Amino acid sequence: MDQVKGAQSLLFREAPYLISAASVAGSKEAEGPIGKLFDVTNEDDLFGAQTWEEAESNMQKEACVLAAGKAHMDLKEIRYLFGGDLLRQGIATAMGVEALQIPMFGLYGACSTSGEALALASMSAAAGYGGTMLAVTSSHFGSAEKEFRFPLGYANQRPLSSHWTVTGSGAFLVRSAEEYQKNQMQPYFSHIRITGVTVGKIVDYGLKDSQNMGACMAPAAMDTIVQNFQDLDRKEKDYDRIITGDLGSIGRTILFDLIREKGYDICEKHMDCGMTIFDKERQDTHAGGSGCGCAAVTLASYVLPKLESGEWKRVLFVPTGALMSTVSFNEGASVPGIAHGIVLESDA
Amino acid sequence: MDQVKGAQSLLFREAPYLISAASVAGSKEAEGPIGKLFDVTNEDDLFGAQTWEEAESNMQKEACVLAAGKAHMDLKEIRYLFGGDLLRQGIATAMGVEALQIPMFGLYGACSTSGEALALASMSAAAGYGGTMLAVTSSHFGSAEKEFRFPLGYANQRPLSSHWTVTGSGAFLVRSAEEYQKNQMQPYFSHIRITGVTVGKIVDYGLKDSQNMGACMAPAAMDTIVQNFQDLDRKEKDYDRIITGDLGSIGRTILFDLIREKGYDICEKHMDCGMTIFDKERQDTHAGGSGCGCAAVTLASYVLPKLESGEWKRVLFVPTGALMSTVSFNEGASVPGIAHGIVLESDA
Repeated sequence: MDQVKGAQSLLFREAPYLISAASVAGSKEAEGPIGKLFDVTNEDDLFGAQTWEEAESNMQKEACVLAAGKAHMDLKEIRYLFGGDLLRQGIATAMGVEALQIPMFGLYGACSTSGEALALASMSAAAGYGGTMLAVTSSHFGSAEKEFRFPLGYANQRPLSSHWTVTGSGAFLVRSAEEYQKNQMQPYFSHIRITGVTVGKIVDYGLKDSQNMGACMAPAAMDTIVQNFQDLDRKEKDYDRIITGDLGSIGRTILFDLIREKGYDICEKHMDCGMTIFDKERQDTHAGGSGCGCAAVTLASYVLPKLESGEWKRVLFVPTGALMSTVSFNEGASVPGIAHGIVLESDA
Repeated sequence: MDQVKGAQSLLFREAPYLISAASVAGSKEAEGPIGKLFDVTNEDDLFGAQTWEEAESNMQKEACVLAAGKAHMDLKEIRYLFGGDLLRQGIATAMGVEALQIPMFGLYGACSTSGEALALASMSAAAGYGGTMLAVTSSHFGSAEKEFRFPLGYANQRPLSSHWTVTGSGAFLVRSAEEYQKNQMQPYFSHIRITGVTVGKIVDYGLKDSQNMGACMAPAAMDTIVQNFQDLDRKEKDYDRIITGDLGSIGRTILFDLIREKGYDICEKHMDCGMTIFDKERQDTHAGGSGCGCAAVTLASYVLPKLESGEWKRVLFVPTGALMSTVSFNEGASVPGIAHGIVLESDA
């Protein structure tokens, strides 16, 4: 079987297993609708550190150690790590995974990074480049506001279209089918496989409002979802859920409109991690959650258990990223988007 | 044959071909020792743009288009792109490759990114995930000084241990062995294969001087080179050259010392792209060149032709990165390093 499908997708000949996941999140996330599902939460969002950046690093490290522990694995047994975050020069990841001493690939795909990491981890596992791969991403409200917007101390007003960056880190272990058969240790999840990926293109509709990221990312989400349908000859009915990362309430509306123009209607199948993780009314988070950690912790804590139990049989996980920096938007550049699609299937 | 070798390396069962490369560089690079070898150079370093960031993006786009053109390829035929740069949120890459509309993976490995991109491109090609992959990285003196140090207008003094960021972008096409046999079009290079990779770990000796990156990166270079020797059961004599990215004159001395402690002596086989690209005395570049573009353009213009001609039969290409940001060093964090090893072989 040729693994290459259409212009952008792969269907793995021997689909690797997603054998473990861990989620570490902040205090606001803990108070949200899925707050009770996270493995670890922290009251002061500093996770024992002195700075937001170090706090984010600590979350990543904790998530990795926890994901390995849940699968009874020593970190030394992990072949390669694929990780990233939102900060300049990916410093939360560099500082976070340093202590783990796993050979690593640093990634940047804005809030789509969890999709990028899972794509590369599953591609590497399926190719036989090692037994078990680790994918990890994180974001932190404090470090992200400092990186992209205003220091928290300014207490500036936020437009209603803005997102609330999730303080959280999700880590995932992806094991090759061969290693899955051989390994005697009980995995944490034993029914979930990554059967395919759709690698996203940069999609730019020319929007320049960095405080309306949902609108900036919706075209990329549409592009990747439609490409997935075309490449794999599927439709919305072939998925139990189509799960975007952090389009929020505004981006979701745009996605529904754009995808309807392409002849599909995903309204009944759609879920957005950014809208799932916070209670918009009660938590004053405006359009919804965002950040590399948003999709990652929602996948780890809420989505994967539903696949493991067999409640959902097949989902398309599509984290979306807004590609910008303070320099690019100060220089008047537009904010293009990118989204990667991960097909997760359950044999439960 | 098992492709997995030792703790960190891979040797491909069907080694992909590096079929084309292109280099685009700035004015200072054009005046350097290998200046005549670059495909395109530009007098004002702006490459037709208004900002340094956009200039860097234009270099990347130009390098990609040129690499494809040299191999008689339409960009549409390229399966996946692996790219990165030094700027916050990888914006030079996002803006640079957007117009190419190739599904892409954004990477961050500081100045090691060309190694990371070539590793993932060759891993994906060797796994049969598509016919031809594109790896691209860039750096720009103007955008890097602004990102990491001082605005150019300050005309600040630079310590003698500092590096001069190379203005340049290198792009590489990696083709699977299967596609290489099938494809009728004459490749630009027809004798070079990527036979293996050694994925690097983050190595931190606790150095905090961001103006002495050679010292910060040397331990990582040592770690990856020694790991490559051990994983593949090789020694210095098995390579015609061991080529680091941008250790510069200070980092090189440290590398030689560290590697001697491990029982190897690479002095006679070593070459550093940062020391090759500039004339230290004449061009006042202190420790040497640096940046994602440094190793990339030196590989594309100087190293690959020697492999294509058969002058060199096997080289280990080891771009090194210093993992830091203005935030991390202002907060007192150390500057760890990372290095990825790429084994290039010639059948000429």
